[in-house]
Parts: sequence; C-alpha cells; structure tokens
Amino acid sequence: MPGNSFGQTFTFTTWGESHGAAIGCVVDGVPPGVALAEPDIQKHLDRRRPGQSRYTTQRQEADTVRILSGVFEGVTTGTPIALMTENADQRSKDYGEIVQTFRPGHADYTYLAKYGLRDHRGGGRSSARETAMRVAAGAVARKVLDHILTAPVSVRGALVQMGPHGIDRARWDWDEVDANPFFCPDREAAREWADYLDGVRKRGSSAGAVVEVVAEGVPAGLGEPVYDRLDADLAKALMSINAVKGVEIGNGFAAAATSGEDNADEMRMGADGPEFLSNNNGGVLGGISSGQPVVARFAVKPTSSILIPRRSVTQSGEETDVVTKGRHDPCVGIRAVPVGEAMLALVIADHLLRQRAQTGTAGPVRTF
Amino acid sequence: MPGNSFGQTFTFTTWGESHGAAIGCVVDGVPPGVALAEPDIQKHLDRRRPGQSRYTTQRQEADTVRILSGVFEGVTTGTPIALMTENADQRSKDYGEIVQTFRPGHADYTYLAKYGLRDHRGGGRSSARETAMRVAAGAVARKVLDHILTAPVSVRGALVQMGPHGIDRARWDWDEVDANPFFCPDREAAREWADYLDGVRKRGSSAGAVVEVVAEGVPAGLGEPVYDRLDADLAKALMSINAVKGVEIGNGFAAAATSGEDNADEMRMGADGPEFLSNNNGGVLGGISSGQPVVARFAVKPTSSILIPRRSVTQSGEETDVVTKGRHDPCVGIRAVPVGEAMLALVIADHLLRQRAQTGTAGPVRTF
Amino acid sequence: MPGNSFGQTFTFTTWGESHGAAIGCVVDGVPPGVALAEPDIQKHLDRRRPGQSRYTTQRQEADTVRILSGVFEGVTTGTPIALMTENADQRSKDYGEIVQTFRPGHADYTYLAKYGLRDHRGGGRSSARETAMRVAAGAVARKVLDHILTAPVSVRGALVQMGPHGIDRARWDWDEVDANPFFCPDREAAREWADYLDGVRKRGSSAGAVVEVVAEGVPAGLGEPVYDRLDADLAKALMSINAVKGVEIGNGFAAAATSGEDNADEMRMGADGPEFLSNNNGGVLGGISSGQPVVARFAVKPTSSILIPRRSVTQSGEETDVVTKGRHDPCVGIRAVPVGEAMLALVIADHLLRQRAQTGTAGPVRTF
Amino acid sequence: MPGNSFGQTFTFTTWGESHGAAIGCVVDGVPPGVALAEPDIQKHLDRRRPGQSRYTTQRQEADTVRILSGVFEGVTTGTPIALMTENADQRSKDYGEIVQTFRPGHADYTYLAKYGLRDHRGGGRSSARETAMRVAAGAVARKVLDHILTAPVSVRGALVQMGPHGIDRARWDWDEVDANPFFCPDREAAREWADYLDGVRKRGSSAGAVVEVVAEGVPAGLGEPVYDRLDADLAKALMSINAVKGVEIGNGFAAAATSGEDNADEMRMGADGPEFLSNNNGGVLGGISSGQPVVARFAVKPTSSILIPRRSVTQSGEETDVVTKGRHDPCVGIRAVPVGEAMLALVIADHLLRQRAQTGTAGPVRTF
Repeated sequence: MPGNSFGQTFTFTTWGESHGAAIGCVVDGVPPGVALAEPDIQKHLDRRRPGQSRYTTQRQEADTVRILSGVFEGVTTGTPIALMTENADQRSKDYGEIVQTFRPGHADYTYLAKYGLRDHRGGGRSSARETAMRVAAGAVARKVLDHILTAPVSVRGALVQMGPHGIDRARWDWDEVDANPFFCPDREAAREWADYLDGVRKRGSSAGAVVEVVAEGVPAGLGEPVYDRLDADLAKALMSINAVKGVEIGNGFAAAATSGEDNADEMRMGADGPEFLSNNNGGVLGGISSGQPVVARFAVKPTSSILIPRRSVTQSGEETDVVTKGRHDPCVGIRAVPVGEAMLALVIADHLLRQRAQTGTAGPVRTF
Repeated sequence: MPGNSFGQTFTFTTWGESHGAAIGCVVDGVPPGVALAEPDIQKHLDRRRPGQSRYTTQRQEADTVRILSGVFEGVTTGTPIALMTENADQRSKDYGEIVQTFRPGHADYTYLAKYGLRDHRGGGRSSARETAMRVAAGAVARKVLDHILTAPVSVRGALVQMGPHGIDRARWDWDEVDANPFFCPDREAAREWADYLDGVRKRGSSAGAVVEVVAEGVPAGLGEPVYDRLDADLAKALMSINAVKGVEIGNGFAAAATSGEDNADEMRMGADGPEFLSNNNGGVLGGISSGQPVVARFAVKPTSSILIPRRSVTQSGEETDVVTKGRHDPCVGIRAVPVGEAMLALVIADHLLRQRAQTGTAGPVRTF
Repeated sequence: MPGNSFGQTFTFTTWGESHGAAIGCVVDGVPPGVALAEPDIQKHLDRRRPGQSRYTTQRQEADTVRILSGVFEGVTTGTPIALMTENADQRSKDYGEIVQTFRPGHADYTYLAKYGLRDHRGGGRSSARETAMRVAAGAVARKVLDHILTAPVSVRGALVQMGPHGIDRARWDWDEVDANPFFCPDREAAREWADYLDGVRKRGSSAGAVVEVVAEGVPAGLGEPVYDRLDADLAKALMSINAVKGVEIGNGFAAAATSGEDNADEMRMGADGPEFLSNNNGGVLGGISSGQPVVARFAVKPTSSILIPRRSVTQSGEETDVVTKGRHDPCVGIRAVPVGEAMLALVIADHLLRQRAQTGTAGPVRTF
Repeated sequence: MPGNSFGQTFTFTTWGESHGAAIGCVVDGVPPGVALAEPDIQKHLDRRRPGQSRYTTQRQEADTVRILSGVFEGVTTGTPIALMTENADQRSKDYGEIVQTFRPGHADYTYLAKYGLRDHRGGGRSSARETAMRVAAGAVARKVLDHILTAPVSVRGALVQMGPHGIDRARWDWDEVDANPFFCPDREAAREWADYLDGVRKRGSSAGAVVEVVAEGVPAGLGEPVYDRLDADLAKALMSINAVKGVEIGNGFAAAATSGEDNADEMRMGADGPEFLSNNNGGVLGGISSGQPVVARFAVKPTSSILIPRRSVTQSGEETDVVTKGRHDPCVGIRAVPVGEAMLALVIADHLLRQRAQTGTAGPVRTF
C-alpha cells in the first residue's frame, strides 16, 4: 500500500488536505458487533479541536464527524468504516503570499521536489489537519480494545515538557491533564508554562514539546518479532506525526548511560504471579508487551510557522525573508497529545488482532 | 505479512535462531542487472562479526555468507536473492542452566507468554544473531543504491556515546571509525572508552550506547507521506534492532527545547541552487528527504546478560537469582553500528523504488 | 490490509453499503500531475448506472461522483484521491420481508455466519452496488495509463454470451458494444438476446453471462512472478466481482484440450521486431505481458434474485420459500462489463508502477 | 511485498531457480505448538517428485526437504520456518542450444523483455521446479489446519481431463487417485489416458489437462469481502501455477448458461441445521465459505517443451525453428495436482487466521 495507510490487520487510511472539501478515513478490519456511534469519536476529536484556548490556532473548525458506513443498528458490521469531517474554515487567502516561497522547517520544498507540484493551501496534505482523522480512527481502536478485552485498557497522554521546561513527576496527576490548556499532568508546571508560552507567542516565536503516552492494561504477548515489534511499530506511528523528531520507549535515551544491573527490570512473585520491580523497558521486552504499562515519549519540534523573519528562497530561486502570518499554534506539541494517544491505541489494536490471528487469543498464550 | 519482513517494494525476510542450523534471508524486489557477489556482502558481515576484540562476544562464527539464488553470471536477475549463513558455534550447553528462568531484560518472559513455548538456546529467535542477516540484506541495498543513483550514497555509522561518555564532535573523523574496536569517530574518546569498558567488563556489568548513522547523497524527494515517511520508516527500522530504546532524527529530543527561529533550517541560493544553512531536521522535512544528509541516532540499552546477580523467577514460579554466564558483548551497542547502517541503507533503497514507482524517477521530480 | 483494498502500488479501498448514506473509495499511489476531473470518472459510471434499459434494475441512482481530495488545480497531487457517491434511492422497505430469510445464491447465510450479524438492507456490503466504486477507481487508472504511456492503452469489454447464447466472432464490431443494451459486439446476437432476456424476465427467471475484456497496447514486461503474475492478479480481480464463478486468460479452458504444437504462439520477425503469429496465451507468458492484447473472460452466474420461488430456511431455522421481489437485473452480467474493464485497467496500472519501481521503466527493459 | 510471496497472515515466500544451488521457502505466521517434522512435508513432495513414471520428466531429483528454522523440539515456535531442497540434477548443458532462442509458449521472451536479462538454465525462475516449494509450504498449511480445527479438513485433488478426454464422474473414486500415474479418480479413464499419452509422447507432442481440487470440512465464514474473497484468492493462487490458463469455482463457466432457478443452491433444515441441497456455488457465497465443500478446477495448457518443431526467433532477431529436447513432462497437468492441493490448503490456512484475527474464532461466529 502507498503511504497513507497504517496497520496490518486493524488498519486505517486517511485522505484530505488542509483546505480541501473534507478530510476522512477508512478504518478496516474492525471486528463485528462493536457498539459505535458518532459521539464515541466526537469526544476525542473535541480534545484535539483547534480554537479552544489562546494557545492553539484560532482556525474555527467544529470537526463534526460522520460515520458513513460499516455501522448498522448501532454496532459495527465487520465491513469498512468510513469517517468524514467537512472542512468549514478554508481561508485560503491567508496563505496567498507564500505560495511561491519555501517556509523554513515546513514541507514546502520537499513536497515540491518530490511531486513536482504542491497544494499550497495551508500546507495541503502536509498540514497537521490530517491528524484529526488519526484521532477519529483511534477512537474506533479504543472501542475495539474495550470490546475484545475483559479488563479495560487505558490509553492516556500528557505533555511532559514545553520548550526547555519539564514537569515534576512527583506531582503527576492524571486529573490535571484535562484541567489546563496544555494537557499537563503537573498543575504548577502548567501555570509556569502559561506565562512562558504567552511570552513565546507575543514575540512571534514558538516552542517545542515532549509528549508522553501510556497504555495501562495491555496484555502480555503483543508484538510481532522481529520487525513488527510493538515498540518498532509504535516508533513509526509516533514519528509519523507532524513535527515529531524523536521517540523513546521506557527509559529511552537515558538507558544508554546506565549499567546492565541498573537497567534490568527484576522480577519477583506477587499475589497474581510474576511481577516486575521496575519498568525501565517501558512495557516491551524483545518487541513484545510484558503486561506492564507501555510507556513512550516523543519530541515535537517548535512550530515552523512563526512571525520572526527567517531567510529562505522562492520557487524561482530568489532569496527572500519569510514571516508566516495566519493562525498557528505557538506549540504544536499541545494538540499532539490526543494524536499520540490515538496512535498508541491504534498500534495496540492492530497487534491485538495479529496476536489473535497467530495464536487464537488476544493476549498471552501462557500465563504464570 | 507477519513480522519477519521489512520494506514494501525493496523487501527482505529473515529467518533463523541463534542456535539453529543456519540463519538466512530473502531479499526481494532487487532490480535486475546489479553486480553482486559474495564478497560484496561478506565485507559488511565481517565488520559485525563477533570475536574480533575483547569487547565483543567470544562466540566463534565465521559468518560466511552464501548467495543461493537470484544472481546469474555475476548480476542480479530481478528474482529473489536468498542468502544463508550456517551457524558454526552452537554451544547450547552454555545456556542450559537458565532454560527455566526469565533473564531480566531479556525476552524470555515475553516470548513464553506470547507463544506458550520458546527456543531457549541462546535466546532463539530473540537473539541479536538475527541482525547478521540485516547486515547482509543491507549490503545488497547498498549495491542497489550504487546501481540506480549516478552520485553515490554514503551510508555510515559511528558510536557517539558509550555508557555516560560521549564524544567531542569537533574531533569527529570518519577514518577513525574502523581504526578502533568501538566504531568511535573520536580517537581520544575511544581511548577513554577502552578503559571504561574494561572496567565494566571486569566487574561483570555492561554498558549502553548511542549510535549515529548518516546517509550522504540521498536525493531529495524520498519518503511517502503521511505514514510511510522516510523518518517514520527509519524510526521503525532502528527501533526494531535488539536492545534499542530510542530513535531520533536530526536534532531529535533537543529540538523540543529550542525555539522556532533557532530550529528552522534557513535557505539561501548557492552555486547549484537552494541551500540549507543548517540541518536541524536531519535531512527530512514533512517525512520527505531534503537532499541534506539524513542523520539519525538510536539508544541501545546495556547488555542484559551480565555476571552481577539479578532477581528473577522461574517458569514454575520460584524466586531465584540470575547470573548470565557465557559469551556476551559487554556493550551490544558496538556491534549495532553496522546493523544501524544496514537498516538505513535498506530504508533508503525501499523508498528509492517507491519514489520511482509513483513518479518515474529515483529522486526529485523537480530540481531548482 | 483487510479485504477491502486492491493493488499493491497503485491501490484503492472501497467502502459503503447498498443502502447506507454513501459509497466511496480512496485511490492511492496515483502519480502526480495527471489531469483529472469528475467528468473523466462520471462517463464510466454512467455506463454502469442502473435504470438505463428494461434489462437492468429500475433502481434510480444518478451515481454522481465527487472528488474530495488529491486533485488541485485540475491535476493529481500524488496524495490520496477520495471519491464519493451518495446513495439516493434507498427503498429499504423492498427488502423488509426477507430480513430473516437466507435468499438462495446470495451471501445472506455466509455473511451472517461470518460476522454474527448483517446489514440486510439490499444486501448491505455484499451488494453489487459496491462495484460502482470499482468503475470510479478504474477511471482514474485509465487516466494514469494515458499519462504514463506514450502509446495509448485501450481497455474494453463486451458480453460474449448470454445464458446459453453466444456470439459469432466473425461479426465482432466494437462500435456495436455501446449501441445495444447488452454491451454485445454482435448486432444480430444482441437482437436475439433481447427476445431471450424478455422471456427470462417475464417468467421471473434470470440469465448468466460471459464477459470478455481486452486491453490493447499493454507494453511487454508487466507482471511480477511468481505469485503476483499479471494473469494471477487479473484472475483475482475478476473473480472478486459479484457473481463471477470463472476466469480464463487467452484460450483458457479450451487450451486443456489442445496439443502443445497447436497451442504454441509461434514467432516470426515483423517490420518492428518479433511478432507472435497467434495469441492463444492471451497476452501473458510466464505471468508477464508479452505486448500482445491481454484477453480475459469471466463467467457471471444468473442473478440470484428471482421471482420463481426457491426453497430456503430462516435465520431461526424454519423452512420457507423465497421469492425476491424488488428491482433486480435479470442478467447481472450486463452491468459487469464496465466493472470488468475497470478491474483490468486497475491491474495494469498497478503492474505498470511495480515494473517502474523495480526496473525504472514502465514497460520492457529490453526491446527487440 | 514483491511478487514472490503469497498470503496475508499465513504467508510464504519462495526463492530459487531451476538450476541454481537450491530452492527454498520461508513460511511465516505459523501458529506456535504445531507438531511438524520433515516427513510431514516430504510425503507431499514425493507425490510431486519427477521421474516416477514414464509420463513425467526423467530429471532425477530426490527433493529432500530440510527444516532450517522455526521448529524446536518437534513443534513450531511461531517464528519463520525456512525450508530448503538442494538441486541435485542440474544438467545445464541440455539447455545450451536454446540459450539465444525464445521457446514458443515459454516465458523466455517475456522474462528477457521485463528484466533485460535472464537465467536461461532450465527456465531459471520461470521453471515449474519452483512449485516444489509450494507443495512444501502447503504441507505446513495442512498441519496448521489440523492443529486449529477440531474436525479435520481434507484437501484433495484429481486430474479430471487430459487433453480432450474427460472422466465419468459416476466412477469417481478417491482411492484410485494415487493408484495410477495420472492422479485420475476414474480407473477406466486412467487406462485410456495411458494409451493416449503414450501416443502424445511418442510423436513429440504434449497434452493439456484440467485439475479439480476439493476441500471438505472447511468451516463456514472464511473469506474477506470484497476483494480478498476466498474464491478470489483461490483464483489467484491457482492461476499463479505455471501453465494455468483458467480457474473456475463450483459450476464455473457452466453457470453462465443456466437459469437463476437452476443455479440456486436451495436450503432445507437437516439434522444438524440448515443444509444446502446442491453445491453449484462450489462452497463459496459472496466470497465467504458456506461450509459446503470448496470445489475449484483449473486448466493447464499443454507443455510448451515439445519435439515437434515450432517457428520462433532468436534474441538477435533471426528466424529459426525450435525443438525442445531434454527431459520434459508430456502433460504438466499431472504434477500440477499436488501443487493445486497445496495452494488450496494455503489459501484456507490464510483465511482461517484472518477470520480469527477479525472475529476471534476460526470459523463461523454464528452457527444455526
């Protein structure tokens, strides 16, 4: 398949451009009999929706999703589920002046090099608007997880770093995440970030971020060695999100500096069987889930659209300075939180079905 | 396809276990007419081969590769290329005592959970021995790149951090990489690492590492948005290597702490057209190669097999302490260097063919 | 990918049910720069559209197609092309009485067995209404063929047998095909078929048919041995059309009764190089196109929906007789003609891009 | 994946040329815990092995198979299974004189056109020798079917037509199939065919054939609409066998001449639930298995290698006559019987796992 599909057994394909008529996706491989209605999807789209605080783009999009197929009398039928959202706010004129110029950090140059032409309206296909459909597909994946597994899987995300400012993990509170405009799990950090990001925004700059996503309740046994490992697929899924430049699992890059004895996740017998005494490996060993929480982080670069002039060239080879006006997120990492959650849910759902194909069970073949 | 294949258009499938009769791979999608002989592959295998210094496992394997199909009269025929290496040194008894025990940090527990049984001989399929076949397939990929592109692509790698010890980038010298047992580009750092790793080895511990891989000469235009981006596929490729816990492209995680203006790769007109003034994005914008060097780093956790006792449990639920005797690399990151190079070459080759499929040219459709 | 996608490099995914809100497809892998507008697609949909004669279902559907993505300023951008047609005439009540009954020859029983539930409205996903989207995708494939190849490829189809009545090949006239309601290339046969099918229709019965599809101008060299042969992919493509029970290439089943010397396509030198003196192999040798016309035929069973009572059972296990009222084609083979053409065009387009990926040219590497 | 792999979830990839060092395959997606040893595979290879009667090629090949990976202590481990057979009898000189000539009916011309070069030794990759590995992979598929399903699936094949001579179905006896050199289920027909084929052989000609394959015990519910239907995948699988020119399911082409009422498979309640009163549809409705026997037939063209001179041209454009000496099957359809069986078993195994992925059960979700 060309590059607009993801997944092997539970899959989705997205389509649409930032300023086209609509964006949509087709989710396929969905088990039959899963209760699914538009609000199940809408509630996740609403978390990603723009224009909800002064820290995100002011583009007005209701992002109302429609289910066009694959659901009958309230449940999935096993046939492909088509989802669609019409683009409401297509102010193409905002982008008029940079039609001929390569915006630094954007995909303008590479799309034009690759294809020989490009849809310049709002970045066309390279716009992060596409990620709305990931969130929609991820909502379907969550329903599938709930449907198949007896114990629920919780898939959550949070912003753990904004620009150079991290959080205090001792203050981590999942309830805080939806209580501030940053999906920040640390209330104090969120307050500081507000000031910081106001400053960034006012001087026309932008900030990077780090997002952490966590899935609890993932059964052991998911992941297909040696290439379609759970962590490898997750790395691809997260790196495919716009502006992401790094992905790590568990201790990630910090593991490189540790010793074998410190990095080992030791085991002891607990009440319900073997227990790990730590989770340095982020819930994945040898590419297969261990039953511990799956923990990943990804780095989002600062928004490339800024008001501070940057040097560039035009398509016809003239040197110029670029100032990207219009409506932009000062920190695209914020709205990447629900997108990262969605990708994690989608990867788990795919591997759940793959494990079921090969072994007949959606989890471990053997428990201890 | 199940999880033992990689690539979409230029693909390979590996098979084999650490202590089975042989390991092998099938490389498919290779263009016809590429000059290929066993020495082209052997020279790369020799760089990864164990037992070449006191810093790698003493397992004795000649790793002699045979081409079994797909080559006729010295050139590829366009049909699948089967490669095979027989396992010489299968000292299974080394592993006898841990047959029933989960080695912390290893895949013993997850393989057994996933499949209900496992080949315990040297880790079976989860052993890094499988990566020899990645290097072999990567050697074929390199030949394909040379065959298709007029300007050569250079794909190289180096160890840039061992344990907590980094390098001085000002001293980077590619010629040093093959002149020390660590693939270290900084001669002074290599000297320090020798002492450091001797200490690690002697106390029965192990060290993590960070590997950097760089491809120069990659034409602009490679990468398939929005999921099969060049960087997303590369993230998967590198994360799929044994013991890897993190991947980053260009500035990677450091980008999260910077500002939009600092992270932007500005452009100016050079002698041959537009030029980037920096490469913070690591040669990939919007998932598509920009023509700049593709730069990625990956973090390798410390070897899990150590002589320092770690707590664990047995398959039958008894608590125990594990000491992994036998022949192990004190720093598996070292031999991951040629593997990382191979994965980078393989990803580029795959995308080169994909670009050619869609646009008819193995590079940019439009140049400036 | 699950089962609703076709193709490897040039691909499409369809979605939608007979009586859902809409049907649609996503075509991916389309080269950039191909001129494409809705009328290019509509003209092919119009040939398949129901209600155009008394020999097809009277369901009223304008089948108006919309392009929702992937086209900018009149040309394709290389990103996925979403096509959609809203369902206008959803008279679900027609089907009300057979909700609980398995219609003989239909997929009611197997869908319910497979999924545990089914969308009974007009057959849901199993309805031949889905084939409209194949025709739409096929229209895009035709444009791609025209775009890539210098010499045009002609992809045409005709009905060569209705019920037990064949044609006289000596009277074959392509101009006749669109001049009668049967896509019949033999004017006399068409006249006889009109009487025959009137009789079938009036007694509430239905008729089978054989469709022949022919692609002229296909370059030599297309097809990927040994599994994704051109003829193997074509067999799958045609067998996947609703009600198709047989596929043959070239002489097909008749070849089994011939001798090696009679079946051989001998060669001689012609003005432009080697020429075949016959085309018993239907333009495919060893799974690869030979440059001769690609010729395939497929058998369509008689419409299962008939007014003559047939014995069946209900979902709750009661025996009953089924009479399928409503609006049905007395010979579904007729409208299968444009569908077969579309599948042929789609298979060729996919293999054209695959050949380009591996060899760099959309045709033979070597000509004689 | 390129064209040398088959299957989506249960897959295999073959490699090797007629006169290369060896041929082999990698079977992936195999469930863990399946008892598997070399004799399980060898017994099927022996049925296809050449040189067993005067009616097959006299090439001497023991076709001894080795399992190189994926099996430990007598059972599959869930990792890829590599199988290999060394080529013993590589009398390349037999083919020396036709190196420069296109043998009519063979793939010489198309391989050379496609790739620009070809391995002329015994047809290279285009040789039917590759089908030995299909039989080997099919043997693994059979073991998987036995492992997963409680009731055994029987997958058998027979030759039902040789040249123009069919069988009397009233005399069908499965026990006869392995009792004559033709896999013929009709003892009388087999006797007649012996005389017929002796005549064909003596005059240097060859004969076509029709093979029927039947799978009994296939659970209802297998097949993925709308493209990866069970019958569509089977059509591809069978058409991909060397020399096959037609495939039909159930009544196949004969269905085109019947009426809807005659072709309908009516249903009644039997002792164990709904029963079909006929099997015109060959066990597949709407692309999904119905629980009835899956019945397919395929047409094999006469062997192209014959002693009767045929007109052709050389690679350099000279006209010539071709006589193909060497060791050839006078009717390649005979040895296609075990190959057809293998492909049927492989398709069923793949769909069994796919059904299990999506619905959690390897068969119908709902029974009646």
